[in-house]
Amino acid sequence: MSLSFSIEASDGKARAGQVKTAHGIFRTPAFMPVGTGGTVKAMTPDSLAATGSDIILANTYHLMLRPGAEIVRSLGGLGKMMGWPGPILTDSGGFQIMSLAKLRKLTDGGVTFKSHIDGTEHFLSPEKSIGIQETLNATISMVLDECTAYPCSKEEAEKSMKLSMGWSAQSKDAFNPRPGFGLFGIVQGGIHFDLRRESATFLEEQKFDGYAIGGLAVGEGSEILHEVAGFTAGLLPCDKPRYLMGVGRPEDLVQAVSVGCDMFDCVLPTRSGRTGQAFTHRGTVNIRNSRHRSDARPLDELCDCPTCLSYTRGYLHHLVRSGEILGSMLMTWHNIHYYQGLMASIRRHILGGEFSRFEASFRELYLEGDIEPLT
Amino acid sequence: MSLSFSIEASDGKARAGQVKTAHGIFRTPAFMPVGTGGTVKAMTPDSLAATGSDIILANTYHLMLRPGAEIVRSLGGLGKMMGWPGPILTDSGGFQIMSLAKLRKLTDGGVTFKSHIDGTEHFLSPEKSIGIQETLNATISMVLDECTAYPCSKEEAEKSMKLSMGWSAQSKDAFNPRPGFGLFGIVQGGIHFDLRRESATFLEEQKFDGYAIGGLAVGEGSEILHEVAGFTAGLLPCDKPRYLMGVGRPEDLVQAVSVGCDMFDCVLPTRSGRTGQAFTHRGTVNIRNSRHRSDARPLDELCDCPTCLSYTRGYLHHLVRSGEILGSMLMTWHNIHYYQGLMASIRRHILGGEFSRFEASFRELYLEGDIEPLT
Repeated sequence: MSLSFSIEASDGKARAGQVKTAHGIFRTPAFMPVGTGGTVKAMTPDSLAATGSDIILANTYHLMLRPGAEIVRSLGGLGKMMGWPGPILTDSGGFQIMSLAKLRKLTDGGVTFKSHIDGTEHFLSPEKSIGIQETLNATISMVLDECTAYPCSKEEAEKSMKLSMGWSAQSKDAFNPRPGFGLFGIVQGGIHFDLRRESATFLEEQKFDGYAIGGLAVGEGSEILHEVAGFTAGLLPCDKPRYLMGVGRPEDLVQAVSVGCDMFDCVLPTRSGRTGQAFTHRGTVNIRNSRHRSDARPLDELCDCPTCLSYTRGYLHHLVRSGEILGSMLMTWHNIHYYQGLMASIRRHILGGEFSRFEASFRELYLEGDIEPLT
Repeated sequence: MSLSFSIEASDGKARAGQVKTAHGIFRTPAFMPVGTGGTVKAMTPDSLAATGSDIILANTYHLMLRPGAEIVRSLGGLGKMMGWPGPILTDSGGFQIMSLAKLRKLTDGGVTFKSHIDGTEHFLSPEKSIGIQETLNATISMVLDECTAYPCSKEEAEKSMKLSMGWSAQSKDAFNPRPGFGLFGIVQGGIHFDLRRESATFLEEQKFDGYAIGGLAVGEGSEILHEVAGFTAGLLPCDKPRYLMGVGRPEDLVQAVSVGCDMFDCVLPTRSGRTGQAFTHRGTVNIRNSRHRSDARPLDELCDCPTCLSYTRGYLHHLVRSGEILGSMLMTWHNIHYYQGLMASIRRHILGGEFSRFEASFRELYLEGDIEPLT
């Protein structure tokens, strides 16, 4: 029934395991590359799988507007349409309505909004969001929630959290349980521990297949992020996956794993790839910088992705500066490969009971910074 | 020495053969995808090779401006830099100076111009162009020529042709012969048979490794194109490859092969791929058209490229309309695969002595047009 989550090893609060779904297994801790509109930008599904990605995320908001959920269904559902045979998690659409859509009108029943693409009016309710995610054939659906703004007053955070909890219950009622498919609840409550506790308790009573920590990585800074994520993770059931939404940088992932988070998504490796920022074992590299112009070394000497095996920094610099599509392709491939390599290391070291040692050595190298320029 | 061209079969004026170079063999008739700035846009070298591409073209004008020939050399030369182990033909830069650069000043010695990228002033002469192409490590270099405008008076065409012939001789003198590398001359003369003959005779006396037909596909229309190309091809030595520059549409390639042309380049499959036009066995398809929105059929039912094997018209429509990079990747891949499949068919039918039959059946299907929309 639904999803089956098994923990293979724990090391401190960090856990390594796997989730069995109708569309195959994904290993945890898992990083989900973001495939907003039914494509992880600049990647083919084959290259995505080659990076070690087991599961991807897609955005309900984008897909409901374009091409539309019914069209996705007529093309075989999201996975078949985009040629991705593995599991897919879809968000509820709530976050993008707040961040992208225009003229939002919030009611208890849901949200009326105008598309940022063509201005057409749409309506999303918990029931509608769950229905769309089922139409898309999402492996894991998310409840509709309101991502509480930061900063906001405690009163606002409480009101927003309560709205989300009502929507969670409605989403749960609307969800059609199928073997190998699941529904996750989302803890809200801003930066307030008591509100987070109230939210987590409410959700746990509803019995979801996994629990997400929402409303973070919205500008609160990494200290508060880690504090609230750590506190909230500790409130959630041990036997279900915990998903820290929208996080983040490599160092955030390592930290969040150490407090018991199992799943992550972030546009950072893909979006940065398209603008020339690489993630490497020695921190970030801005390939647009002219220091790389005639540098015949690879982006990351410790990386075995196709970009690092075949191309120089100088060539990548040229491609990115020239706005070449291949620049986006190669940089994105490297970044996702780097992220998935990091997740694989994390899992290996948890299984080996050496996660703390790994965390320290990761930080040391990552914070050391890029290799010296050629002279 | 230089290049070795062997003709394996002839059928009428059509020839099938191969050219041995320092960077491997390419089969003729050959279509060269265009890799303007050191990348065939939206393709990796691996996927390019998988389409059956043996040789690609790169633009000296673009590379001399960005990243600069010396940088290309410091990154191992063009082929090594871009991860393409096969032969590369570079043009001379003359065509782009005329079509892209600003504030050109023509002298007998060469051309002074301003970069269309950053306005910096540059100078190109026959000697300089040949030197840059050697610095890039081009397998086949082209002489510097002036691509005569169309329409123009016969006097202008003659003057332009004579300028190009002078430059050809200077280019030949400047070329450093190396085993497996070659230099091609370019016939000019506009639409005037006597000028074309004069130009071809002049070049033949210079003894080039191959002969190009330049100054066509510049707006003269397909009737004149084929007439002049056919006439000019007949003037050129049989034992050297004949390269019809900048051509063209699939039907143009088939026609040009029938009059004895062996090599082609054109931005059409790549540029069209990025704007949503596909080439198929049944003519062109504009995937942006809303008739494809929920069409679960492949772009081309007769095609076995990764795009057609894995994706629907509806998904491609969605990707292209959404401006997704993957749309450019998949459409470009299909288009180049289609072009190379066409060249493979052409070669096979020449070798089998059935080129005329192929030409007729190609035309019949190609002109039949796209499959009916779904109702």
